[in-house]
Amino acid sequence: MPRSASGRTLDLVFGAVADATRRSMLDRLRSGELTVSELARPYDMSLNAVSKHVKTLERAGLVRRTIKGREHFCRLEGSRLEDAAAWMNEYSGFWSSRLDALEKHLVRKRKRSVQ
Amino acid sequence: MPRSASGRTLDLVFGAVADATRRSMLDRLRSGELTVSELARPYDMSLNAVSKHVKTLERAGLVRRTIKGREHFCRLEGSRLEDAAAWMNEYSGFWSSRLDALEKHLVRKRKRSVQ
Repeated sequence: MPRSASGRTLDLVFGAVADATRRSMLDRLRSGELTVSELARPYDMSLNAVSKHVKTLERAGLVRRTIKGREHFCRLEGSRLEDAAAWMNEYSGFWSSRLDALEKHLVRKRKRSVQ
Repeated sequence: MPRSASGRTLDLVFGAVADATRRSMLDRLRSGELTVSELARPYDMSLNAVSKHVKTLERAGLVRRTIKGREHFCRLEGSRLEDAAAWMNEYSGFWSSRLDALEKHLVRKRKRSVQ
Protein backbone atom coordinates (compact mmCIF):
# COMPACT_ATOMS: atom_id res chain seq x y z
CA MET A 1 0.00 0.00 0.00
CA PRO A 2 1.30 3.49 -0.76
CA ARG A 3 2.06 5.55 2.32
CA SER A 4 1.54 9.27 2.66
CA ALA A 5 4.36 11.42 4.04
CA SER A 6 2.29 11.92 7.14
CA GLY A 7 1.80 8.14 7.48
CA ARG A 8 5.55 7.65 7.22
CA THR A 9 6.06 10.32 9.88
CA LEU A 10 3.65 8.52 12.21
CA ASP A 11 5.56 5.25 11.60
CA LEU A 12 8.81 6.96 12.64
CA VAL A 13 7.33 8.77 15.66
CA PHE A 14 5.50 5.74 17.07
CA GLY A 15 8.51 3.54 16.31
CA ALA A 16 10.77 5.98 18.17
CA VAL A 17 8.59 6.08 21.30
CA ALA A 18 8.07 2.27 21.30
CA ASP A 19 11.16 1.93 23.49
CA ALA A 20 11.36 2.66 27.23
CA THR A 21 14.93 4.07 27.00
CA ARG A 22 13.98 6.53 24.24
CA ARG A 23 10.83 7.58 26.16
CA SER A 24 13.03 8.14 29.21
CA MET A 25 15.40 10.29 27.10
CA LEU A 26 12.48 12.43 25.90
CA ASP A 27 11.26 12.76 29.50
CA ARG A 28 14.67 14.03 30.60
CA LEU A 29 14.93 16.49 27.69
CA ARG A 30 11.70 18.17 28.82
CA SER A 31 13.71 20.05 31.46
CA GLY A 32 16.07 21.50 28.83
CA GLU A 33 18.80 20.54 26.40
CA LEU A 34 21.50 18.04 27.35
CA THR A 35 24.75 16.97 25.73
CA VAL A 36 24.84 13.39 24.42
CA SER A 37 27.22 12.49 27.30
CA GLU A 38 24.83 13.96 29.89
CA LEU A 39 21.94 12.15 28.23
CA ALA A 40 23.89 8.86 28.34
CA ARG A 41 24.78 9.07 32.05
CA PRO A 42 21.93 7.10 33.72
CA TYR A 43 21.86 4.27 31.19
CA ASP A 44 23.88 1.10 31.49
CA MET A 45 24.88 1.10 27.81
CA SER A 46 27.72 2.23 25.56
CA LEU A 47 27.88 5.78 24.20
CA ASN A 48 27.49 4.17 20.77
CA ALA A 49 24.18 2.54 21.81
CA VAL A 50 22.98 5.88 23.24
CA SER A 51 23.97 7.60 20.00
CA LYS A 52 21.86 5.10 18.00
CA HIS A 53 18.84 5.88 20.19
CA VAL A 54 19.43 9.62 19.67
CA LYS A 55 19.62 9.06 15.89
CA THR A 56 16.27 7.22 15.96
CA LEU A 57 14.75 10.17 17.85
CA GLU A 58 16.33 12.62 15.36
CA ARG A 59 15.02 10.70 12.34
CA ALA A 60 11.53 10.87 13.83
CA GLY A 61 11.95 14.64 14.30
CA LEU A 62 11.57 14.38 18.10
CA VAL A 63 15.06 15.59 18.96
CA ARG A 64 17.25 18.23 17.33
CA ARG A 65 21.01 17.91 17.72
CA THR A 66 23.26 20.96 17.46
CA ILE A 67 27.06 20.90 17.59
CA LYS A 68 28.87 23.61 19.57
CA GLY A 69 32.64 23.06 19.58
CA ARG A 70 33.16 19.44 20.60
CA GLU A 71 29.79 19.04 22.29
CA HIS A 72 26.62 17.64 20.74
CA PHE A 73 23.54 19.19 22.35
CA CYS A 74 20.12 17.50 22.15
CA ARG A 75 16.87 19.43 22.35
CA LEU A 76 13.28 18.13 22.48
CA GLU A 77 11.07 19.01 19.48
CA GLY A 78 7.43 18.66 20.54
CA SER A 79 5.53 19.38 17.34
CA ARG A 80 5.81 15.92 15.78
CA LEU A 81 4.44 14.39 18.97
CA GLU A 82 1.37 16.59 18.58
CA ASP A 83 0.47 14.94 15.25
CA ALA A 84 0.90 11.49 16.79
CA ALA A 85 -1.07 12.55 19.89
CA ALA A 86 -3.87 13.82 17.63
CA TRP A 87 -4.10 10.41 15.94
CA MET A 88 -4.26 8.65 19.32
CA ASN A 89 -6.77 11.08 20.79
CA GLU A 90 -9.25 10.31 18.03
CA TYR A 91 -9.56 6.84 19.58
CA SER A 92 -10.19 8.07 23.04
CA GLY A 93 -13.72 8.92 24.05
CA PHE A 94 -12.15 10.41 27.15
CA TRP A 95 -10.50 13.22 25.19
CA SER A 96 -13.17 13.73 22.57
CA SER A 97 -15.89 14.29 25.18
CA ARG A 98 -13.67 16.90 26.87
CA LEU A 99 -12.99 18.60 23.55
CA ASP A 100 -16.69 18.71 22.70
CA ALA A 101 -17.25 20.53 25.99
CA LEU A 102 -14.31 22.83 25.29
CA GLU A 103 -15.60 23.67 21.82
CA LYS A 104 -19.03 24.56 23.20
CA HIS A 105 -17.33 26.70 25.85
CA LEU A 106 -15.24 28.56 23.26
CA VAL A 107 -18.26 29.18 21.02
CA ARG A 108 -20.20 30.60 23.99
CA LYS A 109 -17.20 32.67 25.05
CA ARG A 110 -16.85 34.14 21.53
CA LYS A 111 -20.56 34.99 21.44
CA ARG A 112 -20.28 36.76 24.80
CA SER A 113 -17.27 38.80 23.67
CA VAL A 114 -19.11 39.85 20.48
CA GLN A 115 -22.22 41.04 22.35
CA MET B 1 17.33 -1.29 32.44
CA PRO B 2 14.37 -2.91 34.20
CA ARG B 3 11.03 -2.10 32.61
CA SER B 4 7.75 -1.68 34.43
CA ALA B 5 4.70 -3.62 33.20
CA SER B 6 3.25 -0.32 32.09
CA GLY B 7 6.47 0.56 30.21
CA ARG B 8 6.33 -2.81 28.46
CA THR B 9 2.69 -2.16 27.55
CA LEU B 10 3.62 1.21 26.04
CA ASP B 11 6.40 -0.50 24.03
CA LEU B 12 3.86 -2.95 22.59
CA VAL B 13 1.15 -0.33 21.90
CA PHE B 14 3.49 2.18 20.22
CA GLY B 15 5.22 -0.66 18.31
CA ALA B 16 1.82 -1.89 17.09
CA VAL B 17 0.70 1.53 15.82
CA ALA B 18 4.11 2.27 14.21
CA ASP B 19 2.83 0.65 10.99
CA ALA B 20 0.43 2.24 8.49
CA THR B 21 -1.33 -1.08 7.71
CA ARG B 22 -2.02 -1.77 11.38
CA ARG B 23 -3.24 1.81 11.93
CA SER B 24 -5.54 1.36 8.92
CA MET B 25 -6.87 -1.91 10.45
CA LEU B 26 -7.64 -0.13 13.73
CA ASP B 27 -9.37 2.67 11.79
CA ARG B 28 -11.59 0.16 10.01
CA LEU B 29 -12.44 -1.69 13.24
CA ARG B 30 -13.84 1.54 14.72
CA SER B 31 -17.05 0.92 12.74
CA GLY B 32 -17.52 -2.51 14.33
CA GLU B 33 -16.07 -6.01 14.41
CA LEU B 34 -14.79 -7.71 11.24
CA THR B 35 -13.69 -11.24 10.43
CA VAL B 36 -10.00 -11.67 9.62
CA SER B 37 -10.97 -12.28 5.95
CA GLU B 38 -13.01 -9.05 5.84
CA LEU B 39 -10.17 -7.19 7.53
CA ALA B 40 -7.72 -8.58 4.94
CA ARG B 41 -9.75 -7.56 1.86
CA PRO B 42 -8.30 -4.10 0.97
CA TYR B 43 -4.66 -5.05 1.51
CA ASP B 44 -2.39 -6.43 -1.18
CA MET B 45 -0.88 -9.08 1.07
CA SER B 46 -1.33 -12.74 2.01
CA LEU B 47 -3.83 -13.83 4.67
CA ASN B 48 -0.80 -15.03 6.62
CA ALA B 49 0.75 -11.52 6.56
CA VAL B 50 -2.59 -10.04 7.68
CA SER B 51 -2.79 -12.62 10.48
CA LYS B 52 0.68 -11.56 11.71
CA HIS B 53 -0.45 -7.93 11.86
CA VAL B 54 -3.57 -8.98 13.80
CA LYS B 55 -1.38 -10.94 16.25
CA THR B 56 0.78 -7.84 16.84
CA LEU B 57 -2.38 -5.83 17.56
CA GLU B 58 -3.66 -8.61 19.89
CA ARG B 59 -0.36 -8.79 21.80
CA ALA B 60 -0.57 -5.03 22.37
CA GLY B 61 -4.14 -5.46 23.67
CA LEU B 62 -5.59 -3.26 20.90
CA VAL B 63 -7.66 -5.99 19.24
CA ARG B 64 -9.59 -8.90 20.73
CA ARG B 65 -10.16 -11.97 18.56
CA THR B 66 -13.09 -14.31 19.21
CA ILE B 67 -13.76 -17.54 17.35
CA LYS B 68 -17.32 -18.39 16.36
CA GLY B 69 -17.54 -21.63 14.35
CA ARG B 70 -14.96 -21.27 11.59
CA GLU B 71 -14.80 -17.48 11.70
CA HIS B 72 -12.31 -15.36 13.63
CA PHE B 73 -13.85 -12.01 14.59
CA CYS B 74 -11.69 -9.00 15.48
CA ARG B 75 -12.87 -6.23 17.76
CA LEU B 76 -11.15 -2.93 18.68
CA GLU B 77 -10.14 -2.53 22.34
CA GLY B 78 -9.69 1.18 23.03
CA SER B 79 -8.52 1.26 26.65
CA ARG B 80 -4.84 0.52 25.99
CA LEU B 81 -4.73 3.38 23.48
CA GLU B 82 -5.94 5.73 26.21
CA ASP B 83 -2.85 5.00 28.33
CA ALA B 84 -0.60 5.62 25.34
CA ALA B 85 -2.55 8.76 24.43
CA ALA B 86 -2.13 10.02 28.01
CA TRP B 87 1.65 9.64 27.71
CA MET B 88 1.68 11.56 24.40
CA ASN B 89 -0.62 14.30 25.63
CA GLU B 90 1.76 15.16 28.45
CA TYR B 91 4.20 16.35 25.78
CA SER B 92 1.78 18.48 23.95
CA GLY B 93 1.42 22.09 25.00
CA PHE B 94 -1.36 22.19 22.45
CA TRP B 95 -3.52 19.83 24.48
CA SER B 96 -2.48 21.01 27.92
CA SER B 97 -3.32 24.64 27.14
CA ARG B 98 -6.76 23.54 25.94
CA LEU B 99 -7.27 21.46 29.06
CA ASP B 100 -6.29 24.39 31.27
CA ALA B 101 -8.99 26.44 29.53
CA LEU B 102 -11.46 23.58 29.89
CA GLU B 103 -10.69 23.23 33.59
CA LYS B 104 -11.26 26.97 34.16
CA HIS B 105 -14.49 26.73 32.21
CA LEU B 106 -15.73 23.78 34.29
CA VAL B 107 -14.85 25.52 37.54
CA ARG B 108 -16.77 28.65 36.45
CA LYS B 109 -19.69 26.50 35.29
CA ARG B 110 -19.83 24.71 38.64
CA LYS B 111 -19.76 28.05 40.50
CA ARG B 112 -22.63 29.36 38.38
CA SER B 113 -24.75 26.24 38.98
CA VAL B 114 -24.13 26.53 42.76
CA GLN B 115 -25.18 30.23 42.89
